[in-house]
Formats: sequence, C-alpha cells, structure tokens
Amino acid sequence: MSKIRLGVLGGGGDSLIGVLHRVASFMYDRYEIVGGVFNPNYDENIKFAKQIGISTERVYENFEKFINEEAAKPESERMEAVSVLTPNFLHFPMAKKLLENGFNVICEKPLTTSLEEAKELEALQKKNNTIFAVTYTYTGYPMVREMKNMIANGIIGEIHKVDLQYYQGWINPVIHDKEKRSKVWRLDPKKAGISSCIGDIGTHIFNMVEYVTGMEVKELLSDLNTLYDDNPLDIDGSILIRMSDKVKGLLRASQIATGDENNITVAIYGRKGALKWEQENPNYLYFLKDDEPRRLIKPGNVYNTDVSLDGTKLPAGHPEGIFDAMGNIYKGVAKALRGEKSFSGEFPTIYEGVRGMMFIEKVVESNKKGNVWISMENQ
Amino acid sequence: MSKIRLGVLGGGGDSLIGVLHRVASFMYDRYEIVGGVFNPNYDENIKFAKQIGISTERVYENFEKFINEEAAKPESERMEAVSVLTPNFLHFPMAKKLLENGFNVICEKPLTTSLEEAKELEALQKKNNTIFAVTYTYTGYPMVREMKNMIANGIIGEIHKVDLQYYQGWINPVIHDKEKRSKVWRLDPKKAGISSCIGDIGTHIFNMVEYVTGMEVKELLSDLNTLYDDNPLDIDGSILIRMSDKVKGLLRASQIATGDENNITVAIYGRKGALKWEQENPNYLYFLKDDEPRRLIKPGNVYNTDVSLDGTKLPAGHPEGIFDAMGNIYKGVAKALRGEKSFSGEFPTIYEGVRGMMFIEKVVESNKKGNVWISMENQ
Amino acid sequence: MSKIRLGVLGGGGDSLIGVLHRVASFMYDRYEIVGGVFNPNYDENIKFAKQIGISTERVYENFEKFINEEAAKPESERMEAVSVLTPNFLHFPMAKKLLENGFNVICEKPLTTSLEEAKELEALQKKNNTIFAVTYTYTGYPMVREMKNMIANGIIGEIHKVDLQYYQGWINPVIHDKEKRSKVWRLDPKKAGISSCIGDIGTHIFNMVEYVTGMEVKELLSDLNTLYDDNPLDIDGSILIRMSDKVKGLLRASQIATGDENNITVAIYGRKGALKWEQENPNYLYFLKDDEPRRLIKPGNVYNTDVSLDGTKLPAGHPEGIFDAMGNIYKGVAKALRGEKSFSGEFPTIYEGVRGMMFIEKVVESNKKGNVWISMENQ
Amino acid sequence: MSKIRLGVLGGGGDSLIGVLHRVASFMYDRYEIVGGVFNPNYDENIKFAKQIGISTERVYENFEKFINEEAAKPESERMEAVSVLTPNFLHFPMAKKLLENGFNVICEKPLTTSLEEAKELEALQKKNNTIFAVTYTYTGYPMVREMKNMIANGIIGEIHKVDLQYYQGWINPVIHDKEKRSKVWRLDPKKAGISSCIGDIGTHIFNMVEYVTGMEVKELLSDLNTLYDDNPLDIDGSILIRMSDKVKGLLRASQIATGDENNITVAIYGRKGALKWEQENPNYLYFLKDDEPRRLIKPGNVYNTDVSLDGTKLPAGHPEGIFDAMGNIYKGVAKALRGEKSFSGEFPTIYEGVRGMMFIEKVVESNKKGNVWISMENQ
Repeated sequence: MSKIRLGVLGGGGDSLIGVLHRVASFMYDRYEIVGGVFNPNYDENIKFAKQIGISTERVYENFEKFINEEAAKPESERMEAVSVLTPNFLHFPMAKKLLENGFNVICEKPLTTSLEEAKELEALQKKNNTIFAVTYTYTGYPMVREMKNMIANGIIGEIHKVDLQYYQGWINPVIHDKEKRSKVWRLDPKKAGISSCIGDIGTHIFNMVEYVTGMEVKELLSDLNTLYDDNPLDIDGSILIRMSDKVKGLLRASQIATGDENNITVAIYGRKGALKWEQENPNYLYFLKDDEPRRLIKPGNVYNTDVSLDGTKLPAGHPEGIFDAMGNIYKGVAKALRGEKSFSGEFPTIYEGVRGMMFIEKVVESNKKGNVWISMENQ
Repeated sequence: MSKIRLGVLGGGGDSLIGVLHRVASFMYDRYEIVGGVFNPNYDENIKFAKQIGISTERVYENFEKFINEEAAKPESERMEAVSVLTPNFLHFPMAKKLLENGFNVICEKPLTTSLEEAKELEALQKKNNTIFAVTYTYTGYPMVREMKNMIANGIIGEIHKVDLQYYQGWINPVIHDKEKRSKVWRLDPKKAGISSCIGDIGTHIFNMVEYVTGMEVKELLSDLNTLYDDNPLDIDGSILIRMSDKVKGLLRASQIATGDENNITVAIYGRKGALKWEQENPNYLYFLKDDEPRRLIKPGNVYNTDVSLDGTKLPAGHPEGIFDAMGNIYKGVAKALRGEKSFSGEFPTIYEGVRGMMFIEKVVESNKKGNVWISMENQ
Repeated sequence: MSKIRLGVLGGGGDSLIGVLHRVASFMYDRYEIVGGVFNPNYDENIKFAKQIGISTERVYENFEKFINEEAAKPESERMEAVSVLTPNFLHFPMAKKLLENGFNVICEKPLTTSLEEAKELEALQKKNNTIFAVTYTYTGYPMVREMKNMIANGIIGEIHKVDLQYYQGWINPVIHDKEKRSKVWRLDPKKAGISSCIGDIGTHIFNMVEYVTGMEVKELLSDLNTLYDDNPLDIDGSILIRMSDKVKGLLRASQIATGDENNITVAIYGRKGALKWEQENPNYLYFLKDDEPRRLIKPGNVYNTDVSLDGTKLPAGHPEGIFDAMGNIYKGVAKALRGEKSFSGEFPTIYEGVRGMMFIEKVVESNKKGNVWISMENQ
Repeated sequence: MSKIRLGVLGGGGDSLIGVLHRVASFMYDRYEIVGGVFNPNYDENIKFAKQIGISTERVYENFEKFINEEAAKPESERMEAVSVLTPNFLHFPMAKKLLENGFNVICEKPLTTSLEEAKELEALQKKNNTIFAVTYTYTGYPMVREMKNMIANGIIGEIHKVDLQYYQGWINPVIHDKEKRSKVWRLDPKKAGISSCIGDIGTHIFNMVEYVTGMEVKELLSDLNTLYDDNPLDIDGSILIRMSDKVKGLLRASQIATGDENNITVAIYGRKGALKWEQENPNYLYFLKDDEPRRLIKPGNVYNTDVSLDGTKLPAGHPEGIFDAMGNIYKGVAKALRGEKSFSGEFPTIYEGVRGMMFIEKVVESNKKGNVWISMENQ
C-alpha cells in the first residue's frame, strides 16, 4: 500500500498550522508530501521545501502553476489530496479551483469568508463527489469521539440541555489600548471578515455541539461585545441556542477571558446521563448519572470502544494531544481516500464547513438586530 | 461578654436548614438559642426543643404567642435576633411582624414570595434601623470573601466580563414522568411562587455576582425552560446580563444538569486578572493573569487578608465547609448586633434580599415577553 | 432524651483544638458542656467560661478539684464524658485519674508520651470498661468511613499494597536557622517526646492504614531525617511496612514538604480494585478497577452506604469539612454512651491510641538501630 | 540543511515503540528514515518498509548485513544515526557493533541487561566520542525541562527532600493466577533480566530524579515484592534513597497499583520552594512556596523559559503529549548531530543509561541482602 501523495498550500516559514498539519499527515505513515506552494515568495518557498526535506520538483511558483501542472499529470502521479492552509480569504478561490479540477481537499477552518462562498463550494463538491475535509481539529480527540459515540448509542438518553464554552484571554493585553488594538489583524474586517471571536473560536464549539450530539442548532440569539466603540469586531459573545423546541443550551466564546489559554468545555445533559469534557485535559471524559458515582473515561483502556481506540496509539496513561487529534483527522481522510471502512465522523466534511459559516453570519445578524432569535435551518 | 439570645422560627424535626443554622449559630460561641417555634404542631415543637436541649419555657405554641410574649419582655431578656427558617410564603408575614416589633432578623432566602413584599419589608427595616440578614450562605466562604476583597482593591482591574453557573441535576429523575413531576412542590406555583429554578438557585448566583463585583446588574434577558408544556415552572434558564454598557456576562442555572450536585461556579474577568471559584471545592480560589502562572489561593495562609482569615478557624489545609460558611454569616450578624468593627459584606442584608426578588420577577418577565431585555435598575 | 453532660480539660484561650472539639460536640445536639478546667490560670479559666457562655459553677481551679468534686456528684449530675485537650504530657496523668474515677474519656492524640503509659491506661480502661475515645479526627470523614466499609465488604478484594502520605511544610521557614529552630517546642524532646514528625502526623496515617484496611502493621523499617545534627528530633521520615508477609506498603510523613499544607493521601490497592482519598478534598473518594472507568464517590448520594450517610448532614454537593469529621466522632461516642446501635469504627478507641504510641516508639527504634525491621506485633 | 539519515533497528509490525520513535523523528522535519532492519523476518521486514513508505533499498535481511553494508558506504551516504528499538537483550550486541563502526546511536531503555555491558558500551562511546542517546522519554516533556531548569537556577533553593512514584496496575489482572503469571514475559528472568518492575519503570523515576535535581543518588535501600513465591521477579518496590547525608527521599514503583495507568509523580522539595509534576497531566507544573499561593506553570506562555518554549510547538492551551516529548529528545539529538547550540539535558546520554543499569542491580542487591543500604557511587 503506497502512501497518499499530498500537496500543501501555505504553511511555510514558521507557520504553526503548517507544523500541525505536517506532523499530523506523518503520524500514521499514510501520507507523503510531494509538493505545493508553501510561501508566496518563490525563494522562501524553495528554501522551505529544502528545510523540510521535500524534493523541489513539484514546489510551484504560485497557485496557478500548481493547478495547471498538477492537473495535467496522469492520475497515477497527481496529488491525491491538497491541504489548504493559506490565509482565510484564499480558502475559497483555491478550494474552488481544486474542486473544479477534481482534487480532494483538506481545508483549514473557517471554510470561506462568507456563507455564500461556502455554499458554492458545497455545490461543486456534491457535483464532483470528491473528498473534502474541514479541519475542526478538536473533533479528532479520542474522548470527543467516544462522547459522540456514547450519545449516538443512547447511553445518556434523549438530550435536553447543552452547554459549551471556548474562552481565551489573548486579546486582553492589547484590547485596552487604542493604538495596539488598531493593529490586530483579527480586528480588521478586511482581513478577519465580519467577526473576530465567533469566527475564530465560537465556530469550533458550534461545530462541536452538532458533532457530538448529532443534532442541529435550529435557532440562536446572540449578544456580542466589542468592548470599545471604535473596535468593529466582536471579541466576546454569549449565544442562546435551541436544538429543538425544548432542547436549549448555550455557547459562549471570549477572547477577553483574562488568563484563559484555550479553555474549551463541552457538557451535554441527557435524561439518563451527562458527559463533560475539557480540551486542556483532553484525555478525561466524565460520565455522570443521577444515582451512580461519576466515571472518568480515559483512552486506551479495555472498556473503550473501537471508535476511540482507533485514534489512540499508545497504551492507557500515555497522554496524546492536539497533534494526535489532527493526526486522527488525517487518518480518517486517508481511509476515505482509500475506500476503507471507517467510523462515522472521522473527519469533518464540507457540510460542517458550510454550517460553520452560516453560524457566523447568523450570530452577527442576531446581535445587530438587537439580540433576537434567528433561524439556523438550512435553506 | 454574654451570648446573643437567639430565637428560631421553623427548622424543627429533620429540617436540614434547621441543622445548618443551629450549628452555624454555635460555631463562634456567640449565640444561645433561647426559644422559638420550631414546628407548627405544639407537641412536636416541645419534643424537638427537648431533643436539642433547649429549655421549653420560651418555646411557643404559635407565632402570635411568640411575638406577643417576646415583645412584652424587658429588653434585657428579649430575644436579640430571630432566625426565620419557615417555608418561603411565611417569611413575609413573620418578618413583617418581627420588624414591627423591633426585632433583629436573620431570614432564609428567598426573602419573600414577591418583590412587592420584599420592598415593604425593606421600608420597615429602614424605618426601624434593625439588623436584617438574608442568608445567602455561599457568601460566607472565606475564599468568596477574599475574591470580593481582591476585586474591591483593584487587583484584577476594571471588570469586563462575568460568568456564573449554578447547576443541579436533582429534578431529572422525576421530571420526565408526568405523574411524578405533578407532585414536586417546587413545581407547584402555589407553593413555589413564579419560578422553580431561578427562584431557588438562580437567585444565589445573581446575589453572588453583585456581591463579589460590587457592581449591579443593569439589564437582563432570559431564556427559561420548563421542558414539558404541562410543567408550569422553569427548571432551567440562561440569562444574559449587562452590568454596564460594555460589561456583559451570563448567569445560568439548571435543575436538569443530570448528575450535577451543587455545581456553582464563579468567574470574574478584569483587565488585570481574573478570579475563579467553585463551590464544591470552596477552599480553592484561582487567580489568573495574562503573563504569569495562575495562582491557587487557599485559606488560612500568611498571604491571606484579614477578611478571609477572620472566617477561617483552623490552619491551612484543614478543609472547612458549608457549615463554616454559614457560621461566618452568623458571626457577621453577631458583630453587627454587638456594634463591633466588621468587614464589608460580612452578611447579606435586606437590600440583597430585595434585589434577589427583583431578579426573579424580571427573569420571568423577560422570558414571558419573548426573551427581551428588562431593566434591573432600582425604581 | 437529654444531652450528654460533657466536661472539658484544656482548650481555653485561643486554642484551636478547643474550638474544634467544642463545635464538634454541638453539631448533633448531643452534648452540653457543663464545666471543666479550660486554663491553668484560674482567672483566665473563668473568663473563658463566660466567653463561651458556660455557667462558671463547675469551672474548677485545677484538675484535682475537678476530679474531687465531679467524682463526688451523684451519677445523675456527674459529667458523663470528659474531653482531654491539654498538652500531650498531661494526657496520661489526667486520663489515668479519670479512668480510676470511672469517667468516660475523649482524649486528643497522641494518647500519652510513651507506650508504657498508654498500656497502663488501656489496662485501666479494660478493667472499668468505660468508653475511651482517641480523636484521630480524619477517621470521621464520611468518605474515609465509606472506604473502610467498602474494604470490609470485599469490594476491592484482598489487599496487596498500601501507600499513605502526610506531608506538611510548616517547619521549613524555621528549620534552616539555628536560632529559630532551637525555639520550636515540637523540636524540644522535653515537650514533644521522642519524635516530632512521626509523633505529630506520622501517627495519623499509621492509624488511618489500620483503620481503613482492618489489618495491622506487622513490621516496619524507618528512615528519619533531622536535617541538622543539632536538631534532636525527626522532621521527616519514610517508613516501609508489612501488613503480612506479602502485603507491603509505605508511610511517609514530613514537616519539610515545602508549601504543603495538610497533605494526607491514602491509597489502598486490592486484587479487585483500589481506593484513593486526599484529605484536602475530603469529599472525593476514587474507586479504580482494572477494566472499568474510575469512579468518583461523593457523600450524600443515593449510592452511598448508611455508614457515610449517617455522617453527612446536608444533600450531595454541600461540602462538609474537618469540623464535621470531628462532629462524627463525637456522635459516635454519644451513641456508645447512650447504648445506641452504631457502625464499626465510629470513633477510635484506646486500642488505637496504644497502637499509635507503639508505632512512634518502633519507628524511632528502627531508625536508631540503622534502619532495620522492627516488629509491631502486640506483646 | 538536509535531513539526518536515520536507520532503525526493530520497531516493525505493530510495535508501539516503533510508532513512537518514527513519529518523534518526523516532528521537527529533521530526520529521514533511510533504512534498517525492522523485523527479523525478511518478508515482514520488506512488507513493513513498504507500508511505512520507505524505499526497500537499504532494508537489510539482518543486522550483520546492515552493519557491513552501511559501514562500507561513504560518509556522505552512511546513516548518521541508528535507533535501536529491539528487545532489551539485543541492545548490547547491536549498540556495541554500531559504536565500533562509528555510528551515532539512539537506544531505547534499559540500555543493556547488565551494568557490566552498559559500562563496556560507555567505554566504547568515550573512545569514539559519538553521540549516544538513551530514550528516557519523560525527560522530553517541556514542563520536566522547565523543572530541571528552575532547580538549576536555584529557584527552589537547596533541595532537602525528593519523592517520586511510578505506579501501574497492568499486571494485576494476571498476577493472581499461577497459569497466567507463568506466561508473562516480563516475569521470565531469561527475557526480562533480574527485575520486572524496577527494570521497566523504576528506572524511569531514578533517571528522572537525577535529571531534574542535577544530583546523584548516593545510597539506596530497597524492599521489593514478588507477591507469590513462585514469581521470580519483583512487581512492586519501595526504595529509600539518599542524595547526600541529609538529603533523603524515596522512589516507589509498582505494577500492582490496581487501576493506575501510567501514574508517574515527581515532587522535589527545596528550602525556597517545591515543584510537583504528574505525567498524566504533563502540561501542569506546580510551584509551591511557604508564603505565597501555589502557582501553576503551563507551557507556551510568555513566562516560560527558552528551555521549555523550544520544546513547545503550539501556543498555550494546546496540549502536547508523549509523542511530542519523544520528538523533543530527537530534536536534541539532531542539534547535537549538527553541532547546534543546545540546552543542557536535551537528550539523556549513555551516562544516564549506565546509571540506570547500576540502579537496577543495586536495588535487587539491597533487597536480596535483606533491605540494607547499598552505595550508588560510581566506581
């Protein structure tokens, strides 16, 4: 079985997302990076390819040449998948061209900068029936998958309440100074789009709640905070959600949660039990019941299901982390590319990418209209 | 220095709240229970007095006799304070009579069953200038007081975000069965008033957020859940709040948080730092900053302030709990009764009781009107 | 049912142990403090009695008068139990006289200052068959009792390994300065006896391991540390133990565990499971199995046994602490005094007191002889 | 800068250690696996090479051919380092040959099966001055390196006490059955050598204590447990240690700590502070002081030192795990191979490997002689 020929767009230089994807692709010996455009500057591009030990033969000067030359290759040589790690506004044009030329795509989130673009990509993907993954990394943690699986199997019964949080504090040191905050690219609508906090991190917990519950958010009501009138984008928000008439919950995200690092929490309450998970201790999943001691589920144990065992490389007690989570997403894509049997939800698809873009737009709309309910039903 | 003569209304039989107040009153050797009406049934009343070792001389047949006889006693013999531990609907008539007769009062929360009643009591209390405590127990924890004090001293800077939770799961085992839920007194508007979850527990975190921040909630928008159409009262709710134009936050309370016991969390984020506390580990207070390791503040240490040391009886590492918290509230009342110097906030006053009632009414109003903003400004 | 007439020796002034016992005695409405000798100075003694609201009638000038007058009273008036809270060296003479005069005794640990004295008291107690409790406070925590009960019921199977720790750091700030350390009474053999660390805290975990397992330590080998040659007493020690030929374990205690407060941990490993508990989070008991998620057992839940529910006053999630633990020991003594049905181990007896003294002597002997095995079999 | 040409011995098939080393070698884009002997069976060997996408050109039939052909290559083509992941008894003959032929080596622990062999390798390594790493993986965690660095910089002052634990429970399900235990290779002296528990895991915490403190163990006294007389090897042990006359501590290791997974704890107590770390939450390092709140140090923050930042790939709050730890060790070796500037302790050397072998032999000797003190001074 040969490795999958992978191309990479972006992720050069000291890009952190580049490291994350590169290591993830290696983790299960399933991919070989054969080329790409790592950097808009050609010299840097070549230099980077050498640095990471890639032959420079298929390292292209720009995306146009990349598409033209790769698309022209025979199927046995063409890249089998392309990872798109460029700045957000480039996701759409690149993904579009890749889809039009029949490439399978692994795209960073957010999928695009608008819902309209996202839907256009989705339509293209449906037409060509290619593999298209959107890397909501946190769904790759074994305990998140265990949670999804337990819920799907009815272990906590019918869900009646959900509660998710994504709190960071990184913007606090710059937000209170007018000069400093004016220079943050995430607060510049031209670069970041219509939202800072919700677009960057709120979308992760929105994805998470739909991922683990298998339900969809039907309506939302948001209250965003910019903290200063001259700051055009939200840096904090609370969002009331309804997943059905009686199943309510809330999503809260912040970039001014002073001192918080990457504090994601997920709590799903059902009639028969509840499940709780925190990203900073990703190997701990708590299962609560009314009348029994709460249980701590950890990966790599005999009591785990195949869904989480498949994404755990070492025996119990050897902590795996965020790189391993992304590795599991790449593994899921590899299985799909090779037509292997896989579990439900082994990688987030373009559908999740579209939902994420809809979420951002609807949250901003609700806030702008004075914190009113907005439908999240697909049209 | 003689002990304070304390009377007690309610709290007999196997009342848990009775145990809590009784032990709390003993804790600092400041009170002596001299009589009361522990039980509406006179035989039970007398039996209980004997059981707890109280002379039956001042154990009265009913509240009328209690008031008549105690009010008639000379000041040197009269009860100096009366604890009101009766069912909620009796708080108002009893407290009213006590205030009219010049008694100092320690009243369980909620203060009354309506805001109107609460304001009437407040007016009476102002007129007579008596001591009136409302026992929001959780404000008695040393680490909660430390938090209030740190915030007052500017240690976390200007607050920009608050996030509080009070999750319990006790109603889950009965709520899904029509027969069972129809028998829960907390879901009977005649007994519980206009709210179950918000009235019982939401009010605690509302009190907490105003207590620790020293700020007031200006506006709120609530979304309550009854889960079933035939259930008349809320058992879950999320409440968006604004403490000023740009200081936002949220309060969330639930009785269907399956498996949760008494899960109160408080997180206050300021420009210079944040503070986090959880009721189930009440001796841990986390202090976060942008650029320093987070710190774990525990009671009984040399680095604590007098505010928390005053409420800590043993050296560091000897866990004190909920009884000790209530003991601190009783201690605060004792200091006030004896005119001793005390810290700010050593016991919650009738003002907090009134705010609590306003909160319940406004939350229900917001929900009924379709989740709209309602003012919490005092009129 | 009348309250138990309790006398108290010591515990006056700002004695912390006095507060602990006094509050504990009140907690279940079972005791009334009727007199005692709180302080060697008579004026202080009387002043203290007034301060805590005790009639001064039975507050005696000294222990001799106490014994003479109390012993002379008719049985219906005599104190039914006497708490001995005086400095360690006074435990023996006082307890001896109390036993000789037929009093029931609640004595602080360590029981005496030597094994010989302890055995003399034990012989007296056996002769008179009085109630004699030694207050190893930590055995009063509901989760410790749950642990003992689970082990007795075979839930973790045959035990094969035990591991206990009691780490404090309080002596670190003074030990490194010759002047300062020379003034610490715990390091003065005349006041503290033959051991500092083992005598004060090591003895607690020794008691704990025998308490929860129901087994006895057969042999021990110790390595103590004085840190400085001019310091005569141990401030740290590691002790290898054998509870049978193949059941091994260790106890470790320290007063130089810098920054540790009152860090007691207990871990008992059996064939079918393990139990772990930490004193600073006393309401969390972890139950581990090979092939199941670990469980967190908390007090006040439907799944708890009567043994722990009996010592829990409020519903689940309302943390009770060290005062409540001591309250449970007093409750156990009250049941014994009144001949009520009780659980096994509701209070530590004089036997545990004797074992504790033997432990201190054997640990010091093992260390002095060059870290050799010493038998702990009762002779 | 070209990648380092890496050869691998062992680690084929479904070897977990193979995955760990392979992923670690990729992590910083520093290595390329160019060949090796993954499996003693040649067909399997080739099959595995294809599976992981390695050219089969330099995949050899056995170790002899490997050495002969690789050693014959010009320096510009020769493997620059060889990872030895074979069963323990093969470490010595392979490492010896590799050293004799001038190869740099990355060897799994334990280095050899006897101290004598280890010393022979050390002498060879000194003679040839090659790079020789022994993969005590846990030293690769950023917070372990932060701990080492803080101690070296005097932040906790002079050390006076150390306490380390490595508890696993994996052998509990098989040890109590004679049939089952007779089939465990770790309990077979022919395969496992003179020790099971100490050799496999005790050696890790021995390495850790010398690594983080920068001090050496001078003497030890051990008490091992086989649990059954027909079991020839230890499965549990407690080891008293002295790092100098007054600096004492203990190491404890177990394979019968029922339910424990990979429970390593490290606590180092100094005059000015203490540091605590647990392997299962590797990104949390606690720093305790007498008179200040304890601090939680996490990786990727502005307050971290270069030593830990260098081994952290993503921003704070993105958990990295055991693969990342091993990746850091490979990175350290890469720096050494390329002559780059590195921090102290970036990979464990052959000296640590020799110390580890001495530890195993001395622990077994102490136990066999009746739990007596044995010197650990290098001869």
